[in-house]
Amino acid sequence: MGIVLTSMPSSPHTTQRPPAPRDRVRVRAVAPGSVGNVGPGLDVLGLAVAGAGDAVVAERRPRTGIELVDAGHPDLPTDPARHASAIAALEVLRRAGAGDVGLALTVAKGLPLAGGQGGSAASAVAGAAAANALLGGPLDAGALLAACLAAEEAVAGRHLDNIAPSLLGGLVLVRSLDPITVTRLPLPATIADELAVVLVHPAQRLRTAEGRAALPASVPREVALAQAAQVAALVAALVAGDWALLAGAVEDRIAEPARAPLLPGFVEAKAAALAAGALGSSISGSGPTAFALARGRAAGERVAAAMVAAYAARGVASTARVTAPDLVGVRIEHLAPAD
Amino acid sequence: MGIVLTSMPSSPHTTQRPPAPRDRVRVRAVAPGSVGNVGPGLDVLGLAVAGAGDAVVAERRPRTGIELVDAGHPDLPTDPARHASAIAALEVLRRAGAGDVGLALTVAKGLPLAGGQGGSAASAVAGAAAANALLGGPLDAGALLAACLAAEEAVAGRHLDNIAPSLLGGLVLVRSLDPITVTRLPLPATIADELAVVLVHPAQRLRTAEGRAALPASVPREVALAQAAQVAALVAALVAGDWALLAGAVEDRIAEPARAPLLPGFVEAKAAALAAGALGSSISGSGPTAFALARGRAAGERVAAAMVAAYAARGVASTARVTAPDLVGVRIEHLAPAD
Repeated sequence: MGIVLTSMPSSPHTTQRPPAPRDRVRVRAVAPGSVGNVGPGLDVLGLAVAGAGDAVVAERRPRTGIELVDAGHPDLPTDPARHASAIAALEVLRRAGAGDVGLALTVAKGLPLAGGQGGSAASAVAGAAAANALLGGPLDAGALLAACLAAEEAVAGRHLDNIAPSLLGGLVLVRSLDPITVTRLPLPATIADELAVVLVHPAQRLRTAEGRAALPASVPREVALAQAAQVAALVAALVAGDWALLAGAVEDRIAEPARAPLLPGFVEAKAAALAAGALGSSISGSGPTAFALARGRAAGERVAAAMVAAYAARGVASTARVTAPDLVGVRIEHLAPAD
Repeated sequence: MGIVLTSMPSSPHTTQRPPAPRDRVRVRAVAPGSVGNVGPGLDVLGLAVAGAGDAVVAERRPRTGIELVDAGHPDLPTDPARHASAIAALEVLRRAGAGDVGLALTVAKGLPLAGGQGGSAASAVAGAAAANALLGGPLDAGALLAACLAAEEAVAGRHLDNIAPSLLGGLVLVRSLDPITVTRLPLPATIADELAVVLVHPAQRLRTAEGRAALPASVPREVALAQAAQVAALVAALVAGDWALLAGAVEDRIAEPARAPLLPGFVEAKAAALAAGALGSSISGSGPTAFALARGRAAGERVAAAMVAAYAARGVASTARVTAPDLVGVRIEHLAPAD
């Protein structure tokens, strides 16, 4: 059957047959963005999305440790100890028993910073996957998840709902962090082919830490149970390809009510999305990006336009993209030596 | 696709073509028991199980109102205003605008009282379905759910996780009570044919009200989110027919820890079930019945024997049955007049 537990393929997807280890001197890993939470699945559900991603080129260097040739964005730290890609890559070296290896990393950010599109997770995944590929793939997916979690914890918070889909692709359920128990859920062709994921990024900053601080420490039992039912309905709808059930299953009573007041225009953008035919809409991860799900690209485009207009009416500039689930996760490319 | 929302068939399953309304003077409805919660799905998930059920024979009588000819058990109230079957039947008359109709109900209890096997729900469902059939089926499934909820609320508590599977059959997700939003999830043939549901009823009494009083009013956010992930994993496993995922998905961090101390022998019986090969085990509804899931009847029998032995080792007598999902829900039979 389509669902697998953490027993995933031992190395991420490669676009070509890897060359012999001695030639693996340059590797590029590209990791997709993701929608964390997907509405009700706070911290436990994530969906990888196609299109923009973060890329890391890794090459060996004579000196041990990690050198950050390019951090990928002027606002990102150049200190490897504080950059998600470098932390994850170093953690891969450590876990692989390759502490004597030196790596130079060049990061290219395709995802927005602090956008709620899984950017820090994608940087970590790309860094970890590139380092692992350069070593010949000693770590399996579970160990890579752990390496990336260390990076995400350092820069954004201890959660896997962006890491896991960015690494594995598709829809991923995070059942436990200790031990890491992650389930990649199968998406039927109808969902994979038709689901439009609308991402609208308002010109706002909301650091993940702020978004998390807004969350309640405890929730009334009734809310917890209702939320569980919504997550189950959402997962059942996506796994069974049931569009009718999907409509209405993106309903979050824990994070969205806490974070919406921090995000001017979100409430209006969500209402506009639903009025324009979205099956559901909520905050992507901890925001500020708002997402919506729609059936078909054309519907997605209408929803995107409605959301941008709603933000604009509140005086908030925004950019939108309409994309689709990414079913592959991180891609590895073996490059020729630089010179 | 297999999943449907509350838009279910407008009347429950009948075993024969209903006769013309004037001849509908006696009807028997038999409603199956159910496992409420199914582990993590407290109040939101229920599974109908085959075998024992509660039966209600309804016939018209000249005087308006409900007469309880037989309450079904010496410990059940003979006052129609306090009996689940009669409350539900009266609610059906009211909702159907048939307040001038008189009904005589004869209840036969196949399910244990206060057992945690959905007995009060089955009595309500059988009473409501029999009354509805006698009227010619004016109420749809949504209205029948509402009628049964009124009865369950009066005798056991306001929840639908036994009512809905007993009425509809199969695995049912309760997403909301106000308004009633219930989703019947499709079970693939492998699950429907092979899943063994083990029910072990210890000689203990735990009233539903006591079981509910033990529940925490609020839960830490992390627990709520972990629980949501388990419900989603359980639903995904059952809907996708993934046995590997099912193993380990019956994990409840909210109700079971609160109720287990009230149920001597449960912890040992659960451990014995898992050691004997069960895929999962927890308390059925609010107990005292313990349930376990296993793959195949033979495995179910081994698990049942191990659980009974574990209770016995704690000095608790118990009876076990090994059954399977019931996919039909309440059955209606039109009877010939009594004389």
